[in-house]
Amino acid sequence: MELYEAIFKRRDIRHFQRRPVPHEITMKILKAAHHAGSVGYMQPWNFVVIESHLVKEQILQVFEKSNAQARKVYTGNAQKLYDSLKLQGIVDAPINIAVTCRHETADGQPVLGRHSIPEMDVYSTCCAIQNLWLAARAEGVGVGWVSILDPHEVKKILKIPESVTLVGYLCLGFPEEFSDQPLLEKVGWRRRLSLDEVIFRNYWDER
Amino acid sequence: MELYEAIFKRRDIRHFQRRPVPHEITMKILKAAHHAGSVGYMQPWNFVVIESHLVKEQILQVFEKSNAQARKVYTGNAQKLYDSLKLQGIVDAPINIAVTCRHETADGQPVLGRHSIPEMDVYSTCCAIQNLWLAARAEGVGVGWVSILDPHEVKKILKIPESVTLVGYLCLGFPEEFSDQPLLEKVGWRRRLSLDEVIFRNYWDER
Repeated sequence: MELYEAIFKRRDIRHFQRRPVPHEITMKILKAAHHAGSVGYMQPWNFVVIESHLVKEQILQVFEKSNAQARKVYTGNAQKLYDSLKLQGIVDAPINIAVTCRHETADGQPVLGRHSIPEMDVYSTCCAIQNLWLAARAEGVGVGWVSILDPHEVKKILKIPESVTLVGYLCLGFPEEFSDQPLLEKVGWRRRLSLDEVIFRNYWDER
Repeated sequence: MELYEAIFKRRDIRHFQRRPVPHEITMKILKAAHHAGSVGYMQPWNFVVIESHLVKEQILQVFEKSNAQARKVYTGNAQKLYDSLKLQGIVDAPINIAVTCRHETADGQPVLGRHSIPEMDVYSTCCAIQNLWLAARAEGVGVGWVSILDPHEVKKILKIPESVTLVGYLCLGFPEEFSDQPLLEKVGWRRRLSLDEVIFRNYWDER
């Protein structure tokens, strides 16, 4: 698939098909993620590929608990709309992938380029996730990023060490369909900003 | 350009050509960035496109100061190697782009999906940067991410509000050449991890 097609047709997924994602495709997607640039060539990411139904059920319980909190910030019609939205596909998706960031290197050496901005390792990990997302799209696989999850509880379930950051929890599978529009735009939750709105020239707020 | 080609041939740049990047290409790259997914469709990013030589010179001074600190963590041969590396192209690059993240929305509404993990807005901004990086590669434009910069000093120069996070400072231009290997791999600073090393099954450390 052409790059721009992957970028512009990448979408969150409403419903997953049950059919499994072939191992070769999962590995192709993970290889793309692993080829992101990283600060000091640190490659701080790990990918916990979850196919266990038991684990997915436990993560779903974390979602339910976190979402019970999250929905409270809305009231009235906004809350009604919120409750109608598809915000996770944890158990339905054939594969879940937890993407994490190690902050230390195996050799204990300081990471080149991370002195002024220590968060660069997490930023690199996010770049890997975007590669994963685009590669999945090119393979016809949809990705949902579930962000309504208490990361500490997810880490406990997946036995991720305290010192490692959970950056993304992703659900992957072949979708029933790729939507033609971002879901939250479609339901009128928020509009797409124009490109001109987000660009400044030389200084903040100058155009 | 095909997606995987952009992913696998994306590279940091050693030397930029002086010729300017046409406006249409810059806008195409920024449009790709702006089409990243974002938590709650927040689109928290802004792009400060810097062509002013004066501003670039000021940013270069911040780099010099930050790098004087950063290089101190190495000694002996490691420091010699460090000093020989090309770690910025701020003034040489025809365009610099500071990518920022707003943590508040214009309408003041809470952002859907950001309740459990507030950093989701920064993660979204990083996804936009990866889109930018890949689109640039597809257009033959190289990107260097300069991370050896005190973000507070950069923000002061660019008049970025205190409440906004500087996520990435990028240098863009047509490269003399795209290297066939990541620079830090080439000089023996760090090796590429094997894909198997970074993948776990169901639980951390299980394979």
